[in-house]
Amino acid sequence: MADGAIAADRFLRACRRQPVDCTPVWFMRQAGRYMAEYRAIRARHTLLEICAQPELAAEVTLQPIDRLGVDAAIIFADILLPLVPMGIELTFAAGEGPVIHNPVRTAADVAALVVREPEEATPSVLEAIRLVRHELDGRVPLIGFAGGPFTVASYLIEGGSSRDYRRTKALMYRAPEVWEALMAKLSDMTARYLAGQIRAGAQAVQLFESWVGALAPCDFERRVLPSLRRIVAAVAPLGAPVIVFGTGTAGLLPALATTGADVVGLDWRIALDDGWARVGHNRAVQGNLDPLVLFGPREEIERHVLDILRRAGGRPGHIFNLGHGILPETPVDNVRFVVELVHEVSAREG
Amino acid sequence: MADGAIAADRFLRACRRQPVDCTPVWFMRQAGRYMAEYRAIRARHTLLEICAQPELAAEVTLQPIDRLGVDAAIIFADILLPLVPMGIELTFAAGEGPVIHNPVRTAADVAALVVREPEEATPSVLEAIRLVRHELDGRVPLIGFAGGPFTVASYLIEGGSSRDYRRTKALMYRAPEVWEALMAKLSDMTARYLAGQIRAGAQAVQLFESWVGALAPCDFERRVLPSLRRIVAAVAPLGAPVIVFGTGTAGLLPALATTGADVVGLDWRIALDDGWARVGHNRAVQGNLDPLVLFGPREEIERHVLDILRRAGGRPGHIFNLGHGILPETPVDNVRFVVELVHEVSAREG
Repeated sequence: MADGAIAADRFLRACRRQPVDCTPVWFMRQAGRYMAEYRAIRARHTLLEICAQPELAAEVTLQPIDRLGVDAAIIFADILLPLVPMGIELTFAAGEGPVIHNPVRTAADVAALVVREPEEATPSVLEAIRLVRHELDGRVPLIGFAGGPFTVASYLIEGGSSRDYRRTKALMYRAPEVWEALMAKLSDMTARYLAGQIRAGAQAVQLFESWVGALAPCDFERRVLPSLRRIVAAVAPLGAPVIVFGTGTAGLLPALATTGADVVGLDWRIALDDGWARVGHNRAVQGNLDPLVLFGPREEIERHVLDILRRAGGRPGHIFNLGHGILPETPVDNVRFVVELVHEVSAREG
Repeated sequence: MADGAIAADRFLRACRRQPVDCTPVWFMRQAGRYMAEYRAIRARHTLLEICAQPELAAEVTLQPIDRLGVDAAIIFADILLPLVPMGIELTFAAGEGPVIHNPVRTAADVAALVVREPEEATPSVLEAIRLVRHELDGRVPLIGFAGGPFTVASYLIEGGSSRDYRRTKALMYRAPEVWEALMAKLSDMTARYLAGQIRAGAQAVQLFESWVGALAPCDFERRVLPSLRRIVAAVAPLGAPVIVFGTGTAGLLPALATTGADVVGLDWRIALDDGWARVGHNRAVQGNLDPLVLFGPREEIERHVLDILRRAGGRPGHIFNLGHGILPETPVDNVRFVVELVHEVSAREG
């Protein structure tokens, strides 16, 4: 294999716990407001407009690839996007996150949700994936993604973001049959959506079950884990590695390891070696730098990156990432610095 | 010992991992807006007024004792209260939490903070403790408390509540000498404040390091743990058990167990047996029902309570509590139901 081919394969090899020339790196929200190139496009288009125009979505997806030197691209989209063709009225209020104008709270609301094939429901996402694969031309692999069923359900039920998921949990506890129906419908949609992305060219997929850490393990195991397993089981035969990620999941890691996903994402609230041991070494892990560290001086960044690599211990199956998405005001040079440092140190010690 | 004496001792015995007749229960924020009696007083007085008037603070502290049948009282106060005599201008905006009008962000800001003995700085808290002890007359023990240094620092630096502790972490990373000076001053104040509460009659003390779970373990160990150890070391010789509590701490539990505290509080995001194993069985644990479960039907509440008791396994050293404070709209009858259920089931199986 030529060096280029090795570099292009780093991420997928690490997902499969195969040896790599150096630790692959990518960043959640690597295409985003911290980059001037992205802000220039956002100045002229809303988030939903970018998602609806495959050329724009592809352009934004590609922006961080050369700029940062990351080892994977992730398609630009939003986890709530596939809800729109299900019948959900979604807008993004400036600075306040998503607003769902027809929240889902009853059996009738769930019954009204329409599940269609992604080629019909979200063709622009699939077209953007095809465009990006063409543009990338094998330089780095492309990751597709979807929201996890708990996380998506929480937006649907709360009508937007939430601090304590009060309505979500109340529905889960008081109307378990409505909850199960919603989970079933979201799982079905999500499995089809991810499969469609893989058919369109996504070479790995990540389930952003971002807020599932709000649940007690017993509730997670009873009310969400079966749905995650169904999604992974439906997608896994297509051959693209599956990553499952959430924040605040230190207590859920042993259960998250049983979804069947190839890779478990760790947030920064658990040490990487501790988290990997809890996941089990028969899975790869992804993470786990605190996004706020990128606001610190270089010596703090270096100390944290080296600590994570030391805890990974050169074991095959570590993908370097943040513990959550890049924050809007993050200095781009610090992000680049992390990519170079991870590559350099892990190549030397690997 | 008569039955009354056994019941009165349950909580303190469990803190020391001694056998009990049944599992002791109390609730964080057990005196609060979910109780009509409390709302009646709050309708006429602000939170700071209640704290400033020992008779009112004592009355509010005692409200849940007979109403709920809990095994401990906790003095009514606020973790930010001892900041006022340090020179901090604090108000509570309606529904928006605390506002600090002169945030602490520089070496000069830290130097300006005044540490005094609690008898001089917060005499009303100490007087309220004396009044409550007198009124309780040995029925149940009284818990004193203070905020943990990270949590209090986060309010001081951010100027109020925070979602991602951006300014706090930025200061920690960019101006570690300012951070250390602030930690030293807060630790000194907190140790004196807790010691004063114990001298006034508090029979146990809890450190509410509520938001420390926002930190990566390496940052916790480097930037906060030494301060927690200093506080516990200063207070422990006074003989009152020390409880340390935070939310989102599943990844920090092994480190939190090294503070020297007798009891480690667990939030609901980790199973109690998993959390206790991570803490180590040479410490007692407190927790860990999701406060939102109290909004569910009785069969959900019962399922969760029984699961927690089963995971505690009758091992001496479990104090039943929520994983965080009682929420304002919680049905009081459900809280009472939990107390009775815990007592009944643990007495039968203990």
